[in-house]
Amino acid sequence: MSGTDRSRERCPDAAGPAVVLVEPQLGENIGMVARAMLNCGLTDLRLVRPREIWPNDKAVAAASGADRVLDGARLYGRTADAIADLVHVYATTARPRDMTKRLASPRAAAADLRARAATGEATGILFGREACGLDNDDVALAQAVVTVPLNPGFSSLNLGMAVLLIGWEWYSAAEAAPPTVPELVIPEQTRPATQAELQGLYDHLEGELDTCGFLRNAQARPSMVRNLRNVFARAALTQQEVRTLRGVVTCLVEARHLKR
Amino acid sequence: MSGTDRSRERCPDAAGPAVVLVEPQLGENIGMVARAMLNCGLTDLRLVRPREIWPNDKAVAAASGADRVLDGARLYGRTADAIADLVHVYATTARPRDMTKRLASPRAAAADLRARAATGEATGILFGREACGLDNDDVALAQAVVTVPLNPGFSSLNLGMAVLLIGWEWYSAAEAAPPTVPELVIPEQTRPATQAELQGLYDHLEGELDTCGFLRNAQARPSMVRNLRNVFARAALTQQEVRTLRGVVTCLVEARHLKR
Repeated sequence: MSGTDRSRERCPDAAGPAVVLVEPQLGENIGMVARAMLNCGLTDLRLVRPREIWPNDKAVAAASGADRVLDGARLYGRTADAIADLVHVYATTARPRDMTKRLASPRAAAADLRARAATGEATGILFGREACGLDNDDVALAQAVVTVPLNPGFSSLNLGMAVLLIGWEWYSAAEAAPPTVPELVIPEQTRPATQAELQGLYDHLEGELDTCGFLRNAQARPSMVRNLRNVFARAALTQQEVRTLRGVVTCLVEARHLKR
Repeated sequence: MSGTDRSRERCPDAAGPAVVLVEPQLGENIGMVARAMLNCGLTDLRLVRPREIWPNDKAVAAASGADRVLDGARLYGRTADAIADLVHVYATTARPRDMTKRLASPRAAAADLRARAATGEATGILFGREACGLDNDDVALAQAVVTVPLNPGFSSLNLGMAVLLIGWEWYSAAEAAPPTVPELVIPEQTRPATQAELQGLYDHLEGELDTCGFLRNAQARPSMVRNLRNVFARAALTQQEVRTLRGVVTCLVEARHLKR
């Protein structure tokens, strides 16, 4: 590397976002994702229900030496488990999903992820299966959406290519001017809620809403659940706020014991 | 695509640089290059001495529908012939070549290529063979060099990925001021809630929380109310979501009439 390039050398492990592949179909694509990740200094790969067996020889071949990423990959049965320890999660989508969400370009998302990494916040990016992307339930779990604006006449992006584009923006954002995004200021006595804590709130609220009949329409239930989760996913809740909201649910429900 | 995205649609053929692959080794990689090119609105593919026969079935399979790029690809015996009609040519290299050349990042090269396209100047980008890149004779033919700064510990980029990165920068350089802040996208059938609607939610929720005793500590009440309001104020709720949340409160509370 030349002298000018040396200044760009960055620790590959510097709090980059986790890359979460939901139901990836081909081992070869997982390998290409690993290679693209390491190109961009990302190493935290998480797989939710990969279709082929794991570990996978075709993945190793396609990774072209990015073995450390494959070796460190973790497997999960559910998207919620794969993101449980993360604070801020982006979902990649090719099209709008009829949800109220913050939508970022890859460059805006990269600036945001860099800003969060600088404060030690754990982040991740969800990528869907090759053929059809993420389903709406997975998108609802994310705090924001990132979409790659490409040729509208031919926008279908290979999975590894999608990871590379976002990874490249992450990597090159290290040199960009500091983002001008409003900063979320959190009181010292608390911290951002993890996805696992959010999931606990969802489970609690949905359980009570099943009991009281709010979700009794089986056909409407999935979209109602998504819409509710989406409100709280978007709100950037603190741990304290999750606790407070669970207290609210408990109190509203327990009133039935105290009154009448 | 939403209304804001529609402005990003651009003619795929708007004077993009030619992509010149010098001695590409694998048909599959040529196909991935074609796909990445069309993703980014590039269509002028030129091949110098491809190793495998041409046309190539593996290229077609890997192109995933970018057939028009493959069908229009032109073959050449020498790099000089492939770039004969071009005015300004970039060579992609992973490392400095001990030549005095202008060296650009992909973003700087993209801005330069856009500026040249605006004046009708024909441009191109040379990419070398998968294993070892361009040889020095080919680099010497180019007016300037573009290098992708990646993880110095793992910078070897797949050929299709390299084309995608440069193509992506070309494509996104069309936007004078790309968005740098995640934008809140709201489905068409609803709209942002007014403050009056939010206030209605607060009154409703706080009234029920007074009833059930959650806010009975008079000293803590003001800050608890503030904290709860803050969660919903921050969430950028839609009118529909306010209605849903009020439905949730009502249902949780009314359970006391139905049960026990």
